[in-house]
Amino acid sequence: MTEAPPSQSVEPSDALVADVFARGCASRGALETVGGKWAILALLALIEGDYRFNALRRRVEGVSEKMLAQTLHALERDGFVRREVVTVIPARVEYSLTPLGTEVAERLRALAEVVEGSVEHITAARAAYDARRS
Amino acid sequence: MTEAPPSQSVEPSDALVADVFARGCASRGALETVGGKWAILALLALIEGDYRFNALRRRVEGVSEKMLAQTLHALERDGFVRREVVTVIPARVEYSLTPLGTEVAERLRALAEVVEGSVEHITAARAAYDARRS
Repeated sequence: MTEAPPSQSVEPSDALVADVFARGCASRGALETVGGKWAILALLALIEGDYRFNALRRRVEGVSEKMLAQTLHALERDGFVRREVVTVIPARVEYSLTPLGTEVAERLRALAEVVEGSVEHITAARAAYDARRS
Repeated sequence: MTEAPPSQSVEPSDALVADVFARGCASRGALETVGGKWAILALLALIEGDYRFNALRRRVEGVSEKMLAQTLHALERDGFVRREVVTVIPARVEYSLTPLGTEVAERLRALAEVVEGSVEHITAARAAYDARRS
């Protein structure tokens, strides 16, 4: 059925419906950014408080300087992390969560808590799976 | 202060404390598994109900057959997804969430909702960041 589109303006809820399943939706890219291996850990660390680069790198055990820098740029670009140059001598750069970053990090913490609380279950599942495959 | 260790058995809570920040902890690997780009979408899709491979592949728009297979194997190995061969003719394979997978997927849905609800904010942050850089 083809009807002329109504002349009224579009309802706000119809104007832009984000959908992480839609290939071109910015929300999918943003979800990918925050779900990245190092991004999750960086966001979880920043719930604890602001961090300077090297301290954050020590907290996120095992991350390379390059990967952490890339991760923080991506998080800053999407508005989850704020990078602030503190003009003392010597100048230092501090990273903190934006309000949106805090919301996201809290959801990630809930996720991490489920995973941490199930680690014995997960380890057993892995062992059983590997035994079936060998 | 060095004292002889108490002879009582270790408290359960001390026996195994999972920590996603610890390099060797299985919880870190599991968090990485569920946070992967395609894993998040597969888990979100499976909240909707069980899926056969090809239907899931259509739902997770843009995923290759190989990547979806790898993703599902990893999720099955860690105990988040169940793979079941249904012995009808022709036989079919169905994927569903385990109880642990459901818990994880619900946390991911809360995360995705924050991201979807902030897509205009994220898009604006990206544009501002890119403008500063160009």
